[in-house]
Amino acid sequence: MEKINVAVNGYGVIGKRVAEAVTLQEDMELVGIGDIVADWRIKSAAAKGYAVFANTEEGRKAMNKEGIPVAGDLDDLLDLADLVVDCAPKKFGAQNAERYKLAGVKYIVQGGEKHQTTGHSFGAENNYATALGRDATRVVSCNTTSIVRTLSALKRAGLLNKARGTLLRRATDPWESHKNGIMNTLVPEPEIPSHQGPDAQSVDPELDVVTAAVKVPQTLSHLHYWTVQLTREASKEDVLEALGTSSRIAFIRMDNELSANNAVKELMLDIGRPHGDMYEVAIWEDMLKVEGDELYYAYLVDNQAIVIPETIDAIRALTGIEPDPNKSIEKTNRSLGITQRFF
Amino acid sequence: MEKINVAVNGYGVIGKRVAEAVTLQEDMELVGIGDIVADWRIKSAAAKGYAVFANTEEGRKAMNKEGIPVAGDLDDLLDLADLVVDCAPKKFGAQNAERYKLAGVKYIVQGGEKHQTTGHSFGAENNYATALGRDATRVVSCNTTSIVRTLSALKRAGLLNKARGTLLRRATDPWESHKNGIMNTLVPEPEIPSHQGPDAQSVDPELDVVTAAVKVPQTLSHLHYWTVQLTREASKEDVLEALGTSSRIAFIRMDNELSANNAVKELMLDIGRPHGDMYEVAIWEDMLKVEGDELYYAYLVDNQAIVIPETIDAIRALTGIEPDPNKSIEKTNRSLGITQRFF
Repeated sequence: MEKINVAVNGYGVIGKRVAEAVTLQEDMELVGIGDIVADWRIKSAAAKGYAVFANTEEGRKAMNKEGIPVAGDLDDLLDLADLVVDCAPKKFGAQNAERYKLAGVKYIVQGGEKHQTTGHSFGAENNYATALGRDATRVVSCNTTSIVRTLSALKRAGLLNKARGTLLRRATDPWESHKNGIMNTLVPEPEIPSHQGPDAQSVDPELDVVTAAVKVPQTLSHLHYWTVQLTREASKEDVLEALGTSSRIAFIRMDNELSANNAVKELMLDIGRPHGDMYEVAIWEDMLKVEGDELYYAYLVDNQAIVIPETIDAIRALTGIEPDPNKSIEKTNRSLGITQRFF
Repeated sequence: MEKINVAVNGYGVIGKRVAEAVTLQEDMELVGIGDIVADWRIKSAAAKGYAVFANTEEGRKAMNKEGIPVAGDLDDLLDLADLVVDCAPKKFGAQNAERYKLAGVKYIVQGGEKHQTTGHSFGAENNYATALGRDATRVVSCNTTSIVRTLSALKRAGLLNKARGTLLRRATDPWESHKNGIMNTLVPEPEIPSHQGPDAQSVDPELDVVTAAVKVPQTLSHLHYWTVQLTREASKEDVLEALGTSSRIAFIRMDNELSANNAVKELMLDIGRPHGDMYEVAIWEDMLKVEGDELYYAYLVDNQAIVIPETIDAIRALTGIEPDPNKSIEKTNRSLGITQRFF
């Protein structure tokens, strides 16, 4: 079987999950990871048997000093790869893109980069076809991915008029919560609309979506509240059926005691998800309410994990190894155990 | 000058603030406070020189033991009072109401009680006139007070069609945050709509308002995000002018570095507010956005303090000592230093 050789550049919160997910795909091979540090994160990658490449001379020295075997530099890594998934911190992706272009390697950047970096923003259920054979795409951010999945599902059913959302953002990622946390406060994004609404339009320009966002002092996941103006009066069943057309929307219930995001995180760990990752958008089914032509609901977004399946699909789209979006989504879902019902 | 004799029953988060505010009014006399405990809270009241009444025999024994002078029991307190403000914990107010009725004393209950307890729910700028001379009213909760103030201002200007809000509720009051806190999680109210929307309709049945609410792990204040469908296209100036018609809405700015609720709390302490209390709804003026006939904004609600001015006005309305709502509001505002601009 033909396999795509995939490199992951930047082994952080997203990078380590992409690397792991790539190793689970039958049609992909992880050729190595690139980074610039030599601390526990990279040691852990080396311990897993990943080939580690040093992006800088300082990085190579540090890795040598720490006894991490260095397989080469970034050029060596790109030489091995058909495609590189850039998981470097925000804004570095755009700089790195120039390197990838020069090396003639296809590339994927994360949602922290601008749409202009690739000219294409990816939603697996939206525009897989337009990514086929392209040199590059951008997997939109965690919040935007959740918005695109849910609103597109309503749109496909002809139910979506416009959507207005309030986003409670986790303050920081768990691994760096000793450095970047906020405590006993709430920090609104200074502007309404926040960037996530327009960002969703980079995937589907037709979406009428406005968001406001606020940082809250917890690290588990984002929580979105939505008010949606439907195109017509609808029943709760109509709406649930529409949302159910996305295989990456899962339904949870308050009356199952999944009544807060810590409970849902614990469930993910209990069912054996790596890192307790939740790839699905988890919508509270019993909380969801339809009143006439208005729909209200809330859902959870695992900001560390939700973009992983989309990234895997984007690899297949860019390389063209799987021209059918549904087949790619199905392969990805199967490999990661993505489900609409957790039990 | 004629003075109203006011009793405060229940000396907790609200009771202590009502007691303090009553002592600031030229037309009111605080005749005493009632409670059932004998810890630091009541010792602090006695130290301020308030007459302390014991509502239970156990309470009296405990107070005697702790050396707190006991002025009498609840009947003695009610004997001295023209009106009692009930600030007992949720649901006790309804039980106490029966005592107040028997004693022939007018009474005010807090928003934790049901509308039916008094048959009247109070908003100073809404229905002061209909409370005039009544035996009892209910000052609606902190969140509801903020909703009624802001939406009524838009309604008075003919701008309000419907409003949909997401409420980030402080997890618990600071004084008991060692007992009732939540940590590193988000706890949605299980049902949409949450109770605050219908509760606002207990003051103004015409308001088309739907709310969803979620507890967040901080103790400083509530934070509301609103999407309002206006009756027509409007300018930001139209909206700010409408909101400005409530003397209890204050305007703050992100670009003044009042960019989170901890900063606003610090400002309240800096300007010398007792307990750092904010009686106003604090709307971010620069964040507020009008797009066509839709309005988006966010504001802060000091859950411990916002109902205090309304309670003072309700005392004047029930006793009829001031028949003019605007004059009562002005007296209350002046006594508490309520302002639309903090500097």
